[in-house]
Amino acid sequence: MTTAPQLAVQDLNARYVDAIDDNKLEAWPDFFTEQGRYRITTAENVERGLPLGLIYATSRAMLRDRVRSLRDANVYEAQRYRHVLGVPLITAEEGGVIAAKTSFIVVRVMHTGESMLFASGSYHDRVVLDGNAARFAEKTVILDSRLIDTLLAIPL
Amino acid sequence: MTTAPQLAVQDLNARYVDAIDDNKLEAWPDFFTEQGRYRITTAENVERGLPLGLIYATSRAMLRDRVRSLRDANVYEAQRYRHVLGVPLITAEEGGVIAAKTSFIVVRVMHTGESMLFASGSYHDRVVLDGNAARFAEKTVILDSRLIDTLLAIPL
Amino acid sequence: MTTAPQLAVQDLNARYVDAIDDNKLEAWPDFFTEQGRYRITTAENVERGLPLGLIYATSRAMLRDRVRSLRDANVYEAQRYRHVLGVPLITAEEGGVIAAKTSFIVVRVMHTGESMLFASGSYHDRVVLDGNAARFAEKTVILDSRLIDTLLAIPL
Repeated sequence: MTTAPQLAVQDLNARYVDAIDDNKLEAWPDFFTEQGRYRITTAENVERGLPLGLIYATSRAMLRDRVRSLRDANVYEAQRYRHVLGVPLITAEEGGVIAAKTSFIVVRVMHTGESMLFASGSYHDRVVLDGNAARFAEKTVILDSRLIDTLLAIPL
Repeated sequence: MTTAPQLAVQDLNARYVDAIDDNKLEAWPDFFTEQGRYRITTAENVERGLPLGLIYATSRAMLRDRVRSLRDANVYEAQRYRHVLGVPLITAEEGGVIAAKTSFIVVRVMHTGESMLFASGSYHDRVVLDGNAARFAEKTVILDSRLIDTLLAIPL
Repeated sequence: MTTAPQLAVQDLNARYVDAIDDNKLEAWPDFFTEQGRYRITTAENVERGLPLGLIYATSRAMLRDRVRSLRDANVYEAQRYRHVLGVPLITAEEGGVIAAKTSFIVVRVMHTGESMLFASGSYHDRVVLDGNAARFAEKTVILDSRLIDTLLAIPL
């Protein structure tokens, strides 16, 4: 185990979920490379070999569009997320690209104050280190449960 | 990213929540400097610019008083907490003082065995490194939900 | 604080829970030494000084038997676990053996998609470092609640 990539991914993850949980949604696309891919799918879909996701974006520009839609729809203001992540498991490292897998759970807090366990799953990421900046070249969010699609509005 | 402050805060956090979750409440004030400030507030209060908190202490002595009250009221014995924390995000570091932000969720386990998601939020800390010891000069606990005040008895 | 043992245990923990959560149950015994001990008990039992656990194994071979039983009973396929762990607290280190304590919560996701907070507690581990491999010589899982025994099927 080399600790440097683990800590680099850990720090990227912490900043990533902080942006979401702290309603700094406009900063969210910047955690991706320009051609960064973002996908949300379920464990069931992965096991069945279904490539489709609930959400799919193939560039930072698409993510920016998504943020604009969310702001227009005013969805984000009515709720708050709290991510808690595990330690990233480094599965590969080559040529400045780190493959990592990280468990997460997300609590959703409604405007009324009600809290619930909203989602659990794992991030399957490819992280590019470019000087001091680490960014996601690919982020696949695999949800443990399939009972979530209709509620999905905010990034995970 | 320098890893040293991240790991120092991470270790302090782990010992801090262990003291609470393991009912070693008398050790809790020692995680603060003598003039350490401790405050619990809500995200809503912070957004509205309300300075008041649900709980406010400005010294280690006040925290010791609080522990004594909790022991006298016998509140602590009837329940158990389990904190799970994220990785600390270091937001500043200057002159031996580290500013860090850490997500948390807390599960409460009643004497009956019943468990519930009790709280989620973030710690906003100023940590002082003094030789081998790291202590909180300031700890602000910002709860995601406002539906908690009447239940707050044990430190978060 | 020396960071090396903390990171070694952290990495072992991450791989351990990944094997369970990712249904790679056959890999689970390999995280233990050949004479590794595994025990699940409750905080109440520990406080009362009761040595018995809900589950007790004293070798890797016993853990392999347990995996075979679980596979035969087909229990594992109907549900999915998601562990989220805190940072390990290193409580001792001597002669290549690290004693560590780590908080955890586990979410259980049923085949139907329903999720629930399933368990919380702490791992009390003795970890042996042997070259590049870290293994559990002893793992005691102390559950916060006693309301779990009948549901326990999958490793924690």
